[in-house]
Amino acid sequence: MGTEPADQLAVRRANLSRTLRHIRAAGPGSRAAIAAATGLHKTTVSSLVEELLSRRLVRETGLERSGTAGRPGRGVALSPELGAVGIELNVDYLAVHGCDLTGRTVVERRVSFDAARRDVEGCLDDLAEAADRALAELVARGVTPVGLTVAVPGLVDVARGVVVVAPNLGWRDVPVVSRLAKGLDPALRVGVDNDANLAALAEFTWGVAAGTADLVYLTGSVGVGGGAIVDGRLLRGADGFSGEIGHLPVEPVGDPCGCGRTGCWETKVGLAELVRRITPEFAYGLGDGPIPDPQERIAEVRRRLDARDPAAVDAVTGIGRWLGHGGAILVNLFNPRVVVLGGYFADLADHLLPAAQAQLTRLAMASPAARCHFVASDLGFTAAARGGAGAVIERMIDDPTTVPADG
Amino acid sequence: MGTEPADQLAVRRANLSRTLRHIRAAGPGSRAAIAAATGLHKTTVSSLVEELLSRRLVRETGLERSGTAGRPGRGVALSPELGAVGIELNVDYLAVHGCDLTGRTVVERRVSFDAARRDVEGCLDDLAEAADRALAELVARGVTPVGLTVAVPGLVDVARGVVVVAPNLGWRDVPVVSRLAKGLDPALRVGVDNDANLAALAEFTWGVAAGTADLVYLTGSVGVGGGAIVDGRLLRGADGFSGEIGHLPVEPVGDPCGCGRTGCWETKVGLAELVRRITPEFAYGLGDGPIPDPQERIAEVRRRLDARDPAAVDAVTGIGRWLGHGGAILVNLFNPRVVVLGGYFADLADHLLPAAQAQLTRLAMASPAARCHFVASDLGFTAAARGGAGAVIERMIDDPTTVPADG
Repeated sequence: MGTEPADQLAVRRANLSRTLRHIRAAGPGSRAAIAAATGLHKTTVSSLVEELLSRRLVRETGLERSGTAGRPGRGVALSPELGAVGIELNVDYLAVHGCDLTGRTVVERRVSFDAARRDVEGCLDDLAEAADRALAELVARGVTPVGLTVAVPGLVDVARGVVVVAPNLGWRDVPVVSRLAKGLDPALRVGVDNDANLAALAEFTWGVAAGTADLVYLTGSVGVGGGAIVDGRLLRGADGFSGEIGHLPVEPVGDPCGCGRTGCWETKVGLAELVRRITPEFAYGLGDGPIPDPQERIAEVRRRLDARDPAAVDAVTGIGRWLGHGGAILVNLFNPRVVVLGGYFADLADHLLPAAQAQLTRLAMASPAARCHFVASDLGFTAAARGGAGAVIERMIDDPTTVPADG
Repeated sequence: MGTEPADQLAVRRANLSRTLRHIRAAGPGSRAAIAAATGLHKTTVSSLVEELLSRRLVRETGLERSGTAGRPGRGVALSPELGAVGIELNVDYLAVHGCDLTGRTVVERRVSFDAARRDVEGCLDDLAEAADRALAELVARGVTPVGLTVAVPGLVDVARGVVVVAPNLGWRDVPVVSRLAKGLDPALRVGVDNDANLAALAEFTWGVAAGTADLVYLTGSVGVGGGAIVDGRLLRGADGFSGEIGHLPVEPVGDPCGCGRTGCWETKVGLAELVRRITPEFAYGLGDGPIPDPQERIAEVRRRLDARDPAAVDAVTGIGRWLGHGGAILVNLFNPRVVVLGGYFADLADHLLPAAQAQLTRLAMASPAARCHFVASDLGFTAAARGGAGAVIERMIDDPTTVPADG
């Protein structure tokens, strides 16, 4: 019976998680109401709530009635004392988001960054500095950070905390977690994950299509990644590498891609292709001047589109068509209700969408395509960073025993 | 508090399911052992087991010890008294599988069939006849069937029981469930689902890669469909239409497909393409003679391959290459550990795999591709039908209250 104690611990953990999840979904409520809704015994709920209080995951509120009968008990709500940070490291910016357990934003900013001109160590130094600053800001606002997740555009081994390959950063086997954890409080949970996966989680939780059980998020940046929520869950796959739509082969003989192959979808719809076609004077990898911030690049493209520059209109229509081609693959394989467009896709959605939706209709199976539409994200540059903070909170709620108890 | 009774019923249902799932995974055991493993109270477990006994989902076994202490109690095991049937309706055959709740096969057969020469009503008549016969056989063997699932190569609206479109059958909006249920016991749960989804479930439960949390199943038939298990769950998508890999656009200007588009992956790897290239004298849709059974077609292709007929070797290598191309899309998007090949892909695996694996390596992201391999299914023609029976059993275990209690 050596497995019995472990089983009992697992049951306790599951019940703690169930209680916390219920409080998040239903809002503040009494212990009696929690017992009624979860089917757990009242004395069990009291003991679970005591433990959650000692771990500072919940706080007591005023008196709450559990129903029509019985005397009112003190209510329990999620605590704003604990929080999390997410940082997205991309080719040309760092985005930072910090929030508390209830989801309230505490810190949010974007910093220009130039991965191409920094070696890996330099990038990690900048990342560590941004992390330190964000964590200190949370503390200054009375929120104790319990974890930090870094979002990276590449294949990430989440379990080992290693970026296996990030073509557009030029990274291979970079141990982000161990490097970052060095300078930080050992109690802090540090993680790294794929940017599009984290952004998909953020869209599912806070975005324009929040709660849509089947949605795909596309990052429109120098790289193009995808994160899929299917049947209400983030798709991970055997190694956490699912959703790598950017490197699907779409042309037998195509342009070279950052990944070393040719004809990848990313070469047709990535930000580099847009810049090359519309504002070649600012193309990536050319010239010695400072690289413009992606928002400046896109503002310039917008100006030309608004002026009906024929070359710009033509290029964006072509990219929109390829966007629809990729959308058709996503629709046939994932059957999403919504494809959420992030990054520059969102900024130029009004110009991209007509061609994209038409191509989707032409290439995808008719039934799922008719019920799926593209929509622009409204989370701006924060989607992946927000998702990073959200992932920390999700892990806390999945296993509340990972948060240390007081005293 | 109008939701309270519903909540209590949901908790009871979840606990019945949890108990049944535990018995299936752990094998026969005492009530005390079930209580220890699930964390449920002993009196609760006794009451749950009474209900499962009255619904004939479990049976009593001999005395079982729950551990080192306490007196032995009577054990509980899954009952072989209840069962399920699955029937796959394909372009050129019907496959039938019946089993009991423990998974033991009771009926299994394949019947030649020619969907192209039968109208929808004729097909449904044949299907109803096969269903009647299989259900009667279960009863004759002492197994009470609780449900039947039909597997169809097309987009299926599972909730409504309607085949929305099945290109290779020429079907559109066919209400399979209501039509089939007409002649059957109203207590019987009749369902319809996509063939590849059901086959993926069967592979996950009983196949060569059983238990692999990330696997994709490919049907190699006239149509080519896919079913994906990701993170241990069958992917469904918003309408249950996920995994439609057969109709991915892979050639800008390609051959016409059964779905009305051109350049679909199915036109490169489907059985019709194999036959057209290797045994054109037996091509689909030509001649007035009887259509050969798919196994006869494949046996003839094998003979030519074994005789090193250059045209046959060339054709199979080309098809293998396209199989690897599709595999690359699956690897990048789903990150499976295994791609299980069904239908004719399994029969010709030794000839298809070298080219397929090489192309996969060339086109997919290196890290996930290196850890993924193709493998031939050993479930033969029964995969989808087995999955259909399995789906009925899974529903029973998810919600045991759907099975009527005795008396």
